[in-house]
Amino acid sequence: MQIITQSIKQKLHRLDETITPEFYVYFNDLYSNDFNTLFGSLPPPDQRHYRAAAVAGDFHRRLLPESSLHFAYSSWSLHWLTGVPKGVDERDSPAWNKGEILYTTERKEVCEAYLKQYEMDIESFLKARAVEVVGGGLMAIVIAGVPDFWDPQTEYTIPSDVNLLGSCLMDMATMGRFSETKVDTFNLPYYFSTRKQLKSILERSDSFTIERMDILNNPGKHTLPTVKARASFFRAVHERLLTDHFGNEIIDELFYLYMKKLESSPVFLNPYNDKSIVILAVLKRKAG
Amino acid sequence: MQIITQSIKQKLHRLDETITPEFYVYFNDLYSNDFNTLFGSLPPPDQRHYRAAAVAGDFHRRLLPESSLHFAYSSWSLHWLTGVPKGVDERDSPAWNKGEILYTTERKEVCEAYLKQYEMDIESFLKARAVEVVGGGLMAIVIAGVPDFWDPQTEYTIPSDVNLLGSCLMDMATMGRFSETKVDTFNLPYYFSTRKQLKSILERSDSFTIERMDILNNPGKHTLPTVKARASFFRAVHERLLTDHFGNEIIDELFYLYMKKLESSPVFLNPYNDKSIVILAVLKRKAG
Repeated sequence: MQIITQSIKQKLHRLDETITPEFYVYFNDLYSNDFNTLFGSLPPPDQRHYRAAAVAGDFHRRLLPESSLHFAYSSWSLHWLTGVPKGVDERDSPAWNKGEILYTTERKEVCEAYLKQYEMDIESFLKARAVEVVGGGLMAIVIAGVPDFWDPQTEYTIPSDVNLLGSCLMDMATMGRFSETKVDTFNLPYYFSTRKQLKSILERSDSFTIERMDILNNPGKHTLPTVKARASFFRAVHERLLTDHFGNEIIDELFYLYMKKLESSPVFLNPYNDKSIVILAVLKRKAG
Repeated sequence: MQIITQSIKQKLHRLDETITPEFYVYFNDLYSNDFNTLFGSLPPPDQRHYRAAAVAGDFHRRLLPESSLHFAYSSWSLHWLTGVPKGVDERDSPAWNKGEILYTTERKEVCEAYLKQYEMDIESFLKARAVEVVGGGLMAIVIAGVPDFWDPQTEYTIPSDVNLLGSCLMDMATMGRFSETKVDTFNLPYYFSTRKQLKSILERSDSFTIERMDILNNPGKHTLPTVKARASFFRAVHERLLTDHFGNEIIDELFYLYMKKLESSPVFLNPYNDKSIVILAVLKRKAG
């Protein structure tokens, strides 16, 4: 935000504009987020180009006043669903995801249930933002996704990496650490769409037009080079969800097993085999 | 805020208004405030009548966009100054406050230095709010103060209570715990005005008119009935400022001495002798 606001100021200066707009940045996250650390990590007020506020709440609902936002930015968040898709944890459902903790490409009904939830959630997000963003206002979305196809013999993606973690949980169930039902009833609430899937959802919006859609390079490949770093990252992302369901005592063993599986797999071992993508979509709010 | 927004909703309902406005509440405090606890203590979203945001920063400066505020509320904060008044901790200044940690009624120059700082700070606050509050918008200020006169033989006020705390620090200096200079260079950054002093500052504003000014009953008299509760309250308010200057090791002894002084003083012992006042001022932003 510091860089964005600085760039705008510099541009206005180059254009000889004498009036610089005031910038207000509203940082959103769930209620349980650590906003104290956020405020503590901002540049000091006299060096900052913007004033900052924290808005706590679920971004699938309204957060800000009508037509109050000129630029919205969402990064690495919209893959999180509002909840586990319906049917996925129900024994009698065609979308029952037995023995897995996330959809797998082989299970069509499970994939469809996840995609459906993803569509509904993105639509809620767009609907809420449509009220808040002014006509002509822009919204940039950075969201993790997958390519249309990857070869599981030589390549992987974030969801297949998560499936590997799921297989460690199943191994632990076999070892008697907990029941298989415990794994059957645990499903992660996120979805990684293809560019095409996301595009089709965004195109259905009555309020926004797609100005641009790009595939960005996934920086994770470079920032998590070792197996240990990858296991730590996965643990940080999933620990709370896992311990809420399985208890604290399984965590160390689980990520030890996961690290062993990464090490013994020529596919997963090399982070350059990760074919996950990051999609950038720039949307424009249609006029009133 | 829950009660205020609920009342407005009920009133609109009685008036058969079909459209209820949306309420946005912007909670302000310094950057170091614990906003996580604030968000955690709000009523749950489905029972809350408003959306909440936290705005970190000094309220003597701008916090919110131009003409974005319909009602502003400041409670028990404006007696805090932006800093220790100039000259109060300088040996060569006529306002040098030797041996005291707050102005005392006997020292005219010190009182004037504090009042001057108070005036400047309230004026900065009003100037910043004037930009943010819409024409016709209201601002309610609840601020601690003192009466024009109180009899120190039988009555006390918050500042005289603080002077008592100061005398405990001087006793500790005499006992050799630290130097007297240490006390001379410590002054608390707050001021308790009379109703008249505050009124005269508010009347000087070009942007706000005074709609109402009342003296409220000070609830502290009832909520802090014991000497121990009062010492704990005083400690909670001052601990950080005291330890930053005197170190952690003096705190227990200081508040033990303070409690002893309260107990041995017939004046200070009875909380009903506290003649401090709470001033409510309701201001209205003049049109454009």
